[in-house]
Amino acid sequence: MPTYIAPVKDTKFVLEQVLQLDRYANIPGFQNASPDVVDAVLTEGGRFVAEVLFPLNHVGDREGCIRHADGSVTTPTGFKEAYRQFVEGGWPTLGMPEEFGGQGMPHVLSTAFEEYLISSNMAFAMYGGLALGAVSAILAKGSQEQKDKYLPRMISGEWGGTMNLTEPHCGTDLGLIRTRAVPNADGSYAITGTKIFISAGEHDLTDNIIHLVLAKTPDAPESSKGISLFIVPKVLVNDDGSLGERNAVACGSIEEKMGIHGNATCVMNYDGAKGWLVGEENKGLTAMFIMMNAARLAVGLQGLSLGEVALQNAVLYARERRQGRALTGPAEPEEKADPLFVHPDVRRMLMEGKALTEGLRALCLWGALQVDLSHKAPTEEERRAADDLISLLTPVIKGYGTDKGYEIATNAQQIFGGHGYIVETGLEQYVRDARISMIYEGANGVQAMDLVGRKLPMNGGRAIQHFFKIIAEEVAAAKQDERLAGFAAALEKANGQLQAATMWLMQNAMQNPNHAGAGAYHYMHILGIVSVGLMWLRMASAAVRMLDAGEGDAKFLEAKLVTARFFAERIMPDAGALRRKIEGGADALMALDPEMFAVG
Amino acid sequence: MPTYIAPVKDTKFVLEQVLQLDRYANIPGFQNASPDVVDAVLTEGGRFVAEVLFPLNHVGDREGCIRHADGSVTTPTGFKEAYRQFVEGGWPTLGMPEEFGGQGMPHVLSTAFEEYLISSNMAFAMYGGLALGAVSAILAKGSQEQKDKYLPRMISGEWGGTMNLTEPHCGTDLGLIRTRAVPNADGSYAITGTKIFISAGEHDLTDNIIHLVLAKTPDAPESSKGISLFIVPKVLVNDDGSLGERNAVACGSIEEKMGIHGNATCVMNYDGAKGWLVGEENKGLTAMFIMMNAARLAVGLQGLSLGEVALQNAVLYARERRQGRALTGPAEPEEKADPLFVHPDVRRMLMEGKALTEGLRALCLWGALQVDLSHKAPTEEERRAADDLISLLTPVIKGYGTDKGYEIATNAQQIFGGHGYIVETGLEQYVRDARISMIYEGANGVQAMDLVGRKLPMNGGRAIQHFFKIIAEEVAAAKQDERLAGFAAALEKANGQLQAATMWLMQNAMQNPNHAGAGAYHYMHILGIVSVGLMWLRMASAAVRMLDAGEGDAKFLEAKLVTARFFAERIMPDAGALRRKIEGGADALMALDPEMFAVG
Repeated sequence: MPTYIAPVKDTKFVLEQVLQLDRYANIPGFQNASPDVVDAVLTEGGRFVAEVLFPLNHVGDREGCIRHADGSVTTPTGFKEAYRQFVEGGWPTLGMPEEFGGQGMPHVLSTAFEEYLISSNMAFAMYGGLALGAVSAILAKGSQEQKDKYLPRMISGEWGGTMNLTEPHCGTDLGLIRTRAVPNADGSYAITGTKIFISAGEHDLTDNIIHLVLAKTPDAPESSKGISLFIVPKVLVNDDGSLGERNAVACGSIEEKMGIHGNATCVMNYDGAKGWLVGEENKGLTAMFIMMNAARLAVGLQGLSLGEVALQNAVLYARERRQGRALTGPAEPEEKADPLFVHPDVRRMLMEGKALTEGLRALCLWGALQVDLSHKAPTEEERRAADDLISLLTPVIKGYGTDKGYEIATNAQQIFGGHGYIVETGLEQYVRDARISMIYEGANGVQAMDLVGRKLPMNGGRAIQHFFKIIAEEVAAAKQDERLAGFAAALEKANGQLQAATMWLMQNAMQNPNHAGAGAYHYMHILGIVSVGLMWLRMASAAVRMLDAGEGDAKFLEAKLVTARFFAERIMPDAGALRRKIEGGADALMALDPEMFAVG
Repeated sequence: MPTYIAPVKDTKFVLEQVLQLDRYANIPGFQNASPDVVDAVLTEGGRFVAEVLFPLNHVGDREGCIRHADGSVTTPTGFKEAYRQFVEGGWPTLGMPEEFGGQGMPHVLSTAFEEYLISSNMAFAMYGGLALGAVSAILAKGSQEQKDKYLPRMISGEWGGTMNLTEPHCGTDLGLIRTRAVPNADGSYAITGTKIFISAGEHDLTDNIIHLVLAKTPDAPESSKGISLFIVPKVLVNDDGSLGERNAVACGSIEEKMGIHGNATCVMNYDGAKGWLVGEENKGLTAMFIMMNAARLAVGLQGLSLGEVALQNAVLYARERRQGRALTGPAEPEEKADPLFVHPDVRRMLMEGKALTEGLRALCLWGALQVDLSHKAPTEEERRAADDLISLLTPVIKGYGTDKGYEIATNAQQIFGGHGYIVETGLEQYVRDARISMIYEGANGVQAMDLVGRKLPMNGGRAIQHFFKIIAEEVAAAKQDERLAGFAAALEKANGQLQAATMWLMQNAMQNPNHAGAGAYHYMHILGIVSVGLMWLRMASAAVRMLDAGEGDAKFLEAKLVTARFFAERIMPDAGALRRKIEGGADALMALDPEMFAVG
């Protein structure tokens, strides 16, 4: 069975030395996050998830959720008690506003904890995670009355929450939705329709579940411009806050799926259920994007989280399992064989995993910091810059992050050999669980189009130009230090590929938008490489600074320098290949008729 | 539920136009394989697997195999009846020697059929596949008596067969095995030990199962030089060929695993079971490699097979599922949305799948032809050249083929979006099933080391030099035709990366063998790209030749030219990045102590 230890030391290195959170003490919430509080949250949070949630991960996979004839759903053994402890410990409230009972901590800190939460038990983490997605939409677009009525108990974890977008015939193309919302006399709406793939749609963890549902009002325009967002509680909430009648919404079935068995993926049937409009009619898409953006960052984190826990187990296995001899001669001649760890190809997979998980951790936390700054930085200019950055990086964190998470998990499984294919070792579950993150909340191809079609041209390319400026400045500074100059030059080269690809897309997409579509996925990956490369430059810089000052754990810091070099040598070269693929354009790619793909 | 149609048209294109089988009519067996026989085998074989085996694929996954208290194992519903039809139809005998009841067809033809067999139902195909692995060892190293006693009924499919190598503490490192073989007075041996991960180790499809078992005799040297190979029948065979007593071998348990649930992966307990030595004592490794090499090519084929069936379903889904609009404006304005097929990123995945499956099909069949030629070509020189090529290509077909098969299956699942994660659509099964091919019969990292550590330096690099010569000649010829010149130049460039990487490895591995180990995996992938690239050059050349002659289906042939261009633009660029990674060497990769991978 696998093990898990929260990587608190590395998280603290990122928060304190790379992001230097102490520089943000002037920003609301950050004064709460003193080093000792950060340490306590990470240490206690890491212990909680490892001790309480992690042991239920395999159970959740084996048992799955059960739907009963009355539509109720039972979660796997132990989930309910663990959820009670999760709520009692106040863990869901960490980054939530104090106004509604939250602890008001920076988003960057709650994100650090969320990584651990997902690593320990992704299916469990999704119950609270979906609720927070729903919270973000109500916070942004709900009326004061709605906020007061729903948020305190959603934030505490007392109630759950969901996001209801997909229908059987429409996933990405939400303009096609058929769920209808007909106004009632009392100002509410009667919601009727079927939603599918609703994570945490029904369960036994909470007394109530607040569904956020996309639907169309009777005279709404076709297309996504006619979508509205509604709050549809599972149990109606009386004015005094007590629970009233059961609403006309029910789980019709649970999907049998490849992984995340511990989370109930529901078909939800709305049969004239009472719903209340969030924000304005036909403006549902805006509210939904707020919810989606929060969810996309959380899904990107899933890539890191599953990569991390899978890698930890592969490292242990590579140290313990003995097979063959080192190419340079027996490393431990007194034993009958050397540990797997001596084999360069095993080490390659471990180093790729280390370079990517540590790099993605820094990127996810840097991104989370931008979310904080976009809301709370003192000046409009700072808020705008942060918003630009996180808008640009969201599809990268989601798309590149989950692709790499799956790859790390797959490689970790590979290190186990045949034993990795067996259920008992737990590695195959990580691969199956990690797979969904590439698909949901906008499949990664949709992320790529969001990046290239929306985020890149947005405001005349302001965000990517800002990103290029950051790279240029930090590369120039690093070149002054000979210990960083080699890495800085490699990053500059990879960034040159990114700039060339950007230019190519700008010049060719106008002539034929398919050129942009054809290169979008590869572009997302180059930007992923350069973004993680920037994080490695910062980590290496922080390591050099600390080594010079005689601070910190010298071996840990030297490992950062070695891993940065590995990233430059072994991961950055892909940027050039990706650029060349982009420059292939759409011609050959789009040339064949459907018939030419048919067999026979 | 998924569908499957055997790609007979493409197979025939490869056999007749690319490999030009009619050139080999002078070789034993090939005269049997006239065009009409090839057509009948492929058409009838394709129909049989699609109608009889394919419908059982999902059932096999859902039901799995059941071990009963007495150690017997029941295969999934329908497998037994389907196996009876499989044997009755004579399908196992296709490429087997006539001397023992086979049809004596070329290996290249039976390989073509085997692709279909695996596509239709990989778990089912493995029952017969493992038996053929066992047959190959007996054919090569067994005594005439052993051949006469076992082969006819193994070849007919009446009896099964297995390969028993792995033990709990040793997979790759077979020098560590502990299973013992103690001579009996009657010339047999008493075999005692535990073997794990034995595919098709026990089942209800056949009356007998002939296990081939690696074990050590009492005075055998330690290391892999002390291994012997034994025939251990499940039921002892009397001298008159009738079945006698049950032997002391039993299935102790069945593994719960990620996929291929329809095949029983057994722990086999040998408790003084009667066994007969195959070949000489302590020479088991040679016999085992004969068995392994056959198995590795078959496993490489699994990559192609699962990629093919997954891709076929993704193509259908992309044509039927409507979501969003083409970037260039509505393609079907009368409908509410366009088919997925219009989206460049969907097309990217379909084209990658098409370029790789068709390329791997040509490579697997070219490889299979080399197996034929290595045994039966008229001159020693031809036999040697073919043997060199297939030795070099075996790790590539296995390692690169299965990596790409998994990637194609994963991308096919991706095209299904959320529906691809649901069991019902069947795509997730292909991903789970495809995953094992990267692990077993020598994990792909072991293939890479076999390639770089053994195959490359073998006979002073004769095999790779021969390969380079083929590329150079065919590139030079193709450059004479302007329709092929662009592709030929791209292949020349990719081959240049391969040559540079080869040179780098030769120069640096002597100084530090870890440099070879660190680059081996990437080298295997470059050789995969160049090998498949050579296949695309040949397919494009054949297409041009046929178009000029006004032969064949013009659209099919033009699609070959487009797909070759796509391969050059979108897959070949990786060769340069891989070369750069190899040139990174082992320094950063091997620098960190195990402790530096530990968390906290």
